[in-house]
Amino acid sequence: MISAATTLRAMRDRKPLVHQITNYVVMNETANATLAIGALPVMAHAAEEVEEMARLASSLVINIGTLSEHWVEAMLLAGGAATAREIPVVLDPVGAGATTYRTDTARRILDLVGVTVLRGNAGEVATLVGADAEVRGVESMSTGMEPAELAREAARRLGLVASVTGAVDHVSDGERILAVANGDPLLAAVTGTGCMSSALTGCFLAAKPEQPLEAAAEALAAFGVAAEDAAAGADGPGTFHARLYDALYALDPATLDARTRIEEL
Amino acid sequence: MISAATTLRAMRDRKPLVHQITNYVVMNETANATLAIGALPVMAHAAEEVEEMARLASSLVINIGTLSEHWVEAMLLAGGAATAREIPVVLDPVGAGATTYRTDTARRILDLVGVTVLRGNAGEVATLVGADAEVRGVESMSTGMEPAELAREAARRLGLVASVTGAVDHVSDGERILAVANGDPLLAAVTGTGCMSSALTGCFLAAKPEQPLEAAAEALAAFGVAAEDAAAGADGPGTFHARLYDALYALDPATLDARTRIEEL
Amino acid sequence: MISAATTLRAMRDRKPLVHQITNYVVMNETANATLAIGALPVMAHAAEEVEEMARLASSLVINIGTLSEHWVEAMLLAGGAATAREIPVVLDPVGAGATTYRTDTARRILDLVGVTVLRGNAGEVATLVGADAEVRGVESMSTGMEPAELAREAARRLGLVASVTGAVDHVSDGERILAVANGDPLLAAVTGTGCMSSALTGCFLAAKPEQPLEAAAEALAAFGVAAEDAAAGADGPGTFHARLYDALYALDPATLDARTRIEEL
Repeated sequence: MISAATTLRAMRDRKPLVHQITNYVVMNETANATLAIGALPVMAHAAEEVEEMARLASSLVINIGTLSEHWVEAMLLAGGAATAREIPVVLDPVGAGATTYRTDTARRILDLVGVTVLRGNAGEVATLVGADAEVRGVESMSTGMEPAELAREAARRLGLVASVTGAVDHVSDGERILAVANGDPLLAAVTGTGCMSSALTGCFLAAKPEQPLEAAAEALAAFGVAAEDAAAGADGPGTFHARLYDALYALDPATLDARTRIEEL
Repeated sequence: MISAATTLRAMRDRKPLVHQITNYVVMNETANATLAIGALPVMAHAAEEVEEMARLASSLVINIGTLSEHWVEAMLLAGGAATAREIPVVLDPVGAGATTYRTDTARRILDLVGVTVLRGNAGEVATLVGADAEVRGVESMSTGMEPAELAREAARRLGLVASVTGAVDHVSDGERILAVANGDPLLAAVTGTGCMSSALTGCFLAAKPEQPLEAAAEALAAFGVAAEDAAAGADGPGTFHARLYDALYALDPATLDARTRIEEL
Repeated sequence: MISAATTLRAMRDRKPLVHQITNYVVMNETANATLAIGALPVMAHAAEEVEEMARLASSLVINIGTLSEHWVEAMLLAGGAATAREIPVVLDPVGAGATTYRTDTARRILDLVGVTVLRGNAGEVATLVGADAEVRGVESMSTGMEPAELAREAARRLGLVASVTGAVDHVSDGERILAVANGDPLLAAVTGTGCMSSALTGCFLAAKPEQPLEAAAEALAAFGVAAEDAAAGADGPGTFHARLYDALYALDPATLDARTRIEEL
């Protein structure tokens, strides 16, 4: 069943701990988005503690936005611990396709960790399934596939739920495809909103681990609804950004499902 | 004498340099809180420079929120330099009790550095005095001691001023206990507000190094008053967060002491 | 020709990729400033990928605000790749003069990389030309030279464009000196605004690489105009900070040149 409201309620009741190994640029932002929606973030990246931390958590989010070797090692260690405990793992392959190091690291994580949901833009996901893609820095410029098809192909080939975000988001488990049409163009004017959507995917998965396709789509829809609320009354990307946390915090389960625009294709 | 206003005035006159070795999540936030209240932040963590930087500073704040070995080394080097110069040192043991690595690192710093004020939540401080504590990620879930007693015990056993923050904060030097009742529940919805309170403790200590008990309580009271101002008119955690810097910047010594709720137990 | 509006239009048309190796404190902020003005930021610091990333970019910004050895190595590698491709490089020598490590690292980068624009405060730039300077943490306290003269001397001795920011900014190529009088005092109450001005210098250079003197002055003027807009209606540094991104995003080429206060001395 698809109901962002039900999952949101369950998450706020349980306040799951979401372990995030993410990039330097957005750590504060993904932690605040996690808190605002009603879960508990924890950031830890030392090889000395990531396995122990992942064992305390209800989900793990790995984001390769700023990489270096110690961090990759920590991602693999934490991913291994999460896989062993069968908690959901989200991978955000930031910039895959832009440099060989990022593409290779994302592939290595996909090989060695039981990734539940791959959340990226079209260029990043296309790169990881070997399709044509142009990625400039961390932006997707173009891909050779339609996003719905890309999500389904990625899910099939990689054996996970693929969550491809863009003007409309597409989430697929290889069979079903859900399109999510919530959101606002200002999201593209603030850095780290893609990373926030990955963090929120981790929060929703923690509350609904047995249905990752639905949880991933619900997370994007809830985030999109919050973005719509934040944009109303914002004067630009800076005030929109501040209001985005207000809107996540204020998300009302009583009206949420009527506002989500999730469609099965 | 307890007077947040007097200490605030002295700090703004002197603009002390507060050296911070803190976590990736909150560096921007603690630097902005330091600037907003009227001191000068500097972030430096390389072994090559931390001793020199600590020698330029009027206080040092060590925060273990995101750890790795090089950083721990730098914390010990800077702490050593600060101890040798007898400038105040604040330790924020973020997540002590959650993982062995964090608990051990906090203990190592307490052993090797002359920590003036230990500023943490109840779970973190209880962990460090060997009391029962449940810490989930960086959140205190429960402890076996009342916070006032915990603050006094920690101060006694560790030989420092313990500053235990929560709904009401408790600060003790092992004899006296000060309770601080300023603040707003929105503080818990923004990541890094605990870290900001540690940074501001460093600012107040720099202005009043000879009275760490009073300075630590005054810092929490001033931060709490600013939070009260920020919450008035905020629409949620995002706008509250932006308004918190406005409120710190606007803190008025002429009215501050009448608004602080510091009580000796 | 000096026209911030023309350069801004060209930048927004082309959306250049600006590779930034910067400090932990301001990564989010410089990325958001870059996006808000209309360019694309990318943060990458691993030795494994910086050369490849610099080869994709239209300019490179190196900022030494939080240093360690791996990062210095990456700065030199990226700087080498940028120099080889003859794309503009901005160096922000944060804290040069405060510690030997920072001064030496800034000098090493100036020696080994083809730096196009050195953007710093008076104390940092004076340190790098061997003039008297007092730098406390990352703040310039005093220098032995007038800023206009300092900019010209630095440009001559170091063979680059020197961009010395302060109450009034001075940019020189060793012959001409441009003074920029836009801005607002609240810029000094928010951490990382100097770093943002370096990032925006990278954006303008990417759009006008053949005229670095003009591009550097235009960037400061555009940033200053945005700060003026942000300050109008701000309640303090926190709301000013959020509104600064709104103002950068809303900068209107139709009125910009009439508002910039760039004067040739």
